[in-house]
Amino acid sequence: MQSLGRHVLAEIYGCRFEVLNDVKKVEDIMVNAALEAGAEIREFVFHKFSPQGVSGVVVISESHLAIHTWPELGYAALDVFTCGDRVNPWDACNYVAEMFSAGDMKASEVKRGLMEQPEERLVANM
Amino acid sequence: MQSLGRHVLAEIYGCRFEVLNDVKKVEDIMVNAALEAGAEIREFVFHKFSPQGVSGVVVISESHLAIHTWPELGYAALDVFTCGDRVNPWDACNYVAEMFSAGDMKASEVKRGLMEQPEERLVANM
Repeated sequence: MQSLGRHVLAEIYGCRFEVLNDVKKVEDIMVNAALEAGAEIREFVFHKFSPQGVSGVVVISESHLAIHTWPELGYAALDVFTCGDRVNPWDACNYVAEMFSAGDMKASEVKRGLMEQPEERLVANM
Repeated sequence: MQSLGRHVLAEIYGCRFEVLNDVKKVEDIMVNAALEAGAEIREFVFHKFSPQGVSGVVVISESHLAIHTWPELGYAALDVFTCGDRVNPWDACNYVAEMFSAGDMKASEVKRGLMEQPEERLVANM
């Protein structure tokens, strides 16, 4: 089975309140994470919640990055979904964890868009 | 362990090329999916690729919805991530599959932001 995309779901713990609650910092880190991984940015939107928390997404040619932060818990939920072979989602994921000065990260990769491969040719050309 | 959010990852197959390649239709369906599930929309961005395909995200107060379509394969990768008890991510997921007239869907739910619960009180109040 071939897959169209790779999706890393990361649970990032032990981050500083001030970073996770600063919409501009979170936006800069997410945009730079996409660039660090070699992705091509198409659009991005970020939103600051009251009293705290940030949500945002970066749409890239290769799919998307998304973040939701709970500053009061020092926690952020990060998604990095990439298609194609050119961009490695783990590069973006590790960059964000480093910029958040994360104490701990639990992350896993899910294959997206599993497709049946074309059947092998069992009969040789005559 | 308590979780902060529910994240449904859905692989939607057997959809019509014309729907998956129409950025306005995909945007309408995704925005309505959020509303159908009772979510509060904050921002959304959608992008049409050349020669085909659409990517888009809807940021909601409860987290986000994201879609990437491969019209030539009749396939769409859908994510619905919600936090809190008020919005059921499966409502949005099933709505999108229905609007895409999907032939098949494989979806699973991942718990996000697992947090240790406070320790139980083992000593009764005296």
